Amino acid sequence: MFERVALVGIGLIGSSLAHAMRRGGLAGRIAIATRSAETLKRAEELGLGDEYHADAAVAVAGADLVIVSVPVGASGAVAQTIGPALKPGAIVTDVGSTKGSVITQMQPELPGNVHFIPGHPIAGTEHSGPDAGFADLFDGRWCILTPLPGTDAEAISSLTRFWEACGSKVDVMDPQHHDMVLAIVSHLPHIIAYNIVGTADDLEAVTKSEVIKYSASGFRDFTRLAASDPTMWRDVCLHNRDAILEMLARFSEDLSALQRAVRWGDGEKLFDLFTRTRAVRKSIIEAGQEIDVPDFGRHVVAHPPKP
Amino acid sequence: MFERVALVGIGLIGSSLAHAMRRGGLAGRIAIATRSAETLKRAEELGLGDEYHADAAVAVAGADLVIVSVPVGASGAVAQTIGPALKPGAIVTDVGSTKGSVITQMQPELPGNVHFIPGHPIAGTEHSGPDAGFADLFDGRWCILTPLPGTDAEAISSLTRFWEACGSKVDVMDPQHHDMVLAIVSHLPHIIAYNIVGTADDLEAVTKSEVIKYSASGFRDFTRLAASDPTMWRDVCLHNRDAILEMLARFSEDLSALQRAVRWGDGEKLFDLFTRTRAVRKSIIEAGQEIDVPDFGRHVVAHPPKP
Repeated sequence: MFERVALVGIGLIGSSLAHAMRRGGLAGRIAIATRSAETLKRAEELGLGDEYHADAAVAVAGADLVIVSVPVGASGAVAQTIGPALKPGAIVTDVGSTKGSVITQMQPELPGNVHFIPGHPIAGTEHSGPDAGFADLFDGRWCILTPLPGTDAEAISSLTRFWEACGSKVDVMDPQHHDMVLAIVSHLPHIIAYNIVGTADDLEAVTKSEVIKYSASGFRDFTRLAASDPTMWRDVCLHNRDAILEMLARFSEDLSALQRAVRWGDGEKLFDLFTRTRAVRKSIIEAGQEIDVPDFGRHVVAHPPKP
Repeated sequence: MFERVALVGIGLIGSSLAHAMRRGGLAGRIAIATRSAETLKRAEELGLGDEYHADAAVAVAGADLVIVSVPVGASGAVAQTIGPALKPGAIVTDVGSTKGSVITQMQPELPGNVHFIPGHPIAGTEHSGPDAGFADLFDGRWCILTPLPGTDAEAISSLTRFWEACGSKVDVMDPQHHDMVLAIVSHLPHIIAYNIVGTADDLEAVTKSEVIKYSASGFRDFTRLAASDPTMWRDVCLHNRDAILEMLARFSEDLSALQRAVRWGDGEKLFDLFTRTRAVRKSIIEAGQEIDVPDFGRHVVAHPPKP
């Protein structure tokens, strides 16, 4: 599909893309670049690509497709590095969780003769680094592209076909709308999960070992999100600030109302909310974005496999 | 282990107990009681017990062990019904998520010649009703007993052995401490999950179908908890009010600090919190209360089995 693909950054998403490209035979040659010598060495040990470079500019030279998979706060610096080395006509994309900020950071650094198409695969796990990747991470998941007005339609189709070949379904939307949607479906849940795990960790009256022992009663569902990559999530918070603050304000308002219902014993209000939210999960299962195994099938796994 | 066991209430926990007792050969005879004619009929169709009664007083007559598995708000009424019919020397226990309130409701209604030992198995799924039960729900999970001072030690050992035979590990603690621990590990997570799903459901700028399509990015982890039984959770909120309000206050305080860090771009504070919370999940996996499969193994299940 592409002669030469450069992966700049080789964490969970970068390494999963390497596996998915190999599975689908999508790249003639894969060049991998990362600034961390340790990560680069590990990527080479895992055989994720055909070339390994500390300098992203060398990796992208001659590439038809460049995929930047770094924490969003590093997007500007990467664009500055690769900008002058890009092949005319190349497609440059990214996988960052915020799009407005990535566009602001990258676009000014990229030459006019490449096709810059920001993207965001809605897939992930709580694991990070080059060991965390696997070929089917994107299977059945959505990938959102947020091309700027005037972007070459052929380049957009080409990148769409690439993501589809990686297993994804592709949607196109406006960057601002993307940032609003992701603030509620992803950024707020992560922030809330980090917060509740922090609150529990701070309690004096309840020991840490009690929190851990009895976590199957609800708490552990939050810990998966709260175990996500700290650098990535710090950057998301810093780079989608306005949408996140808006969602936090709504969440807090609703929580105050719920708290009031608890304080005043308003059983009817509680029951109504708790009933309404049930339907949302049913829709998610019907949409194929979740499985309907009791307890996520956790109880049936006696010996957890290593990732 | 027991000649005759009465299960009052036959939802997720009651029916799982029926399966676990059968698996372990723990009961000579199982009598099932529930006020709902429909549920009783379903329990009979599923063959969960040996006798089926609309009147709990009939079911508990002659029983050596009585397990009350109803929403905590119904505990008092059940105790009133069964109190006069209990066999002297019987063990009476429950599975409610709050213990202080259950004791206040039940103890005055029970005769002095039975052993009342409140209990709470820390296990569950988001499914409810007699069809939701399965034999290994309790395997490897904790069950907390909160006996009152002066309770017969032999009765406590007997109930402990019963739960162990159902697959559980057993802890004994003070009811007030139980209610505090559960407020943070279970009640707060459920309330927060209900709240965030409600907030998302209310947004005008983001469609419901977008929330559902992109839920794999974090949101869906909350929807499992927010799909739990509304009656049960309404009752938990009403019956563990003080501990829940205390935890909500701490959570909100911490969230305000986090929100401030987002607003002022305090990356260091965000990074510190996001790093600290990672360790908590590691401990939960090490304690065997969670599995370490990427994405909970969700991505590998192409055709979700029916529960």
